[in-house]
Amino acid sequence: MTITITAFEHSPDGGRGLARDTRVRWALEEVGQPYEVRLVSFKAMKEPAHLAAHPFGQIPTYEDGDLVLFETGAIVFHIAQRYPGLLPDDANARARAITWMFAALSTIEPPVLEMANAKLLEGDRPWAAERMPLVQDRVRKPLGLLSNRLGGADWLDGEFSAGDLMMASVLLRIRASGILDEYANLAAYLARAEARPAYKRAFAAQLAVNKPGPP
Amino acid sequence: MTITITAFEHSPDGGRGLARDTRVRWALEEVGQPYEVRLVSFKAMKEPAHLAAHPFGQIPTYEDGDLVLFETGAIVFHIAQRYPGLLPDDANARARAITWMFAALSTIEPPVLEMANAKLLEGDRPWAAERMPLVQDRVRKPLGLLSNRLGGADWLDGEFSAGDLMMASVLLRIRASGILDEYANLAAYLARAEARPAYKRAFAAQLAVNKPGPP
Repeated sequence: MTITITAFEHSPDGGRGLARDTRVRWALEEVGQPYEVRLVSFKAMKEPAHLAAHPFGQIPTYEDGDLVLFETGAIVFHIAQRYPGLLPDDANARARAITWMFAALSTIEPPVLEMANAKLLEGDRPWAAERMPLVQDRVRKPLGLLSNRLGGADWLDGEFSAGDLMMASVLLRIRASGILDEYANLAAYLARAEARPAYKRAFAAQLAVNKPGPP
Repeated sequence: MTITITAFEHSPDGGRGLARDTRVRWALEEVGQPYEVRLVSFKAMKEPAHLAAHPFGQIPTYEDGDLVLFETGAIVFHIAQRYPGLLPDDANARARAITWMFAALSTIEPPVLEMANAKLLEGDRPWAAERMPLVQDRVRKPLGLLSNRLGGADWLDGEFSAGDLMMASVLLRIRASGILDEYANLAAYLARAEARPAYKRAFAAQLAVNKPGPP
């Protein structure tokens, strides 16, 4: 059975790898599973056929035979459970790796999304300049604690896991703000993640969809 | 081995059940596992002993023998994996139930947290009144789609699952705003969740810690 995922026909980030299909592509590359991609337009994302697969009208979705999943965290988790390579065998270590997946999505990403909203959705509002430092400090707070926990380790808990994949994917969204560089060990952690061959293949694959055409 | 969780010594919500230990208590009640609670002061939450268990200095944590977990989603998931009662046996149905856990935490909760921040952290700022409707509309957008998906069903995908537990827990945080009542089926869904005996026991247990003392 072929795994099929969906991705933006034209990603709003222009191929910088921030669209969430990149996380799923990365997971599939780490576990060595081939996949096909169905590109979806913004219009089609809000139509009944796509909403049947993804009730919130987003990408990515994941199809494998009868199974249809949405929600990036759930898809990456499913891949990590199903194929070896992204979760440790030891039960306790496995539970801790899964914990870091949830931490990336529930503790780090919400203030990151708030910061993105402040720029993209409220950048032209009269309060934008005065408010941004407040929002940035909400990102710094958990990042500082994450930096303390990581310390000098390569990955968050032993070997690279789905928890690191998700955390690095969230940290990628912070880099453009400059805030990540305030934490040298987190910047190095992200660089280590990006240097993984599986990440490079995933990044290249999404870029191939989104790169500017010939002049 | 006894399961021990941590909770606020004094919950900021005064026992309304919004602190995240309630989600873990609820999960443990659904699967019928006894547990002990260690209360933690705001001061102790930021000290090294607690940070060793929870790098972000929050509650709840979960201890069971050698295993120490943090992050509510991860803890509820661990309980749901380990004990029967919160996830279906069928592999595909199980993956879909897990998907709803991630959807609650990654799609619905971030705008809900942003709305809470707008009130609690920015309520006295000059932009508070003009900005709040924007933030509320960011909550309405996924709620409307969630309402469409739920339709007339009792639960999100078949039987009650850890996905419903997490979704109802997030919806609880919206109720005070009045926005949830704009979606009659979601308000009824939450009422169904709150009527579960396991939820009632969890709510009562956290209230017993937080209720005002005798006069």
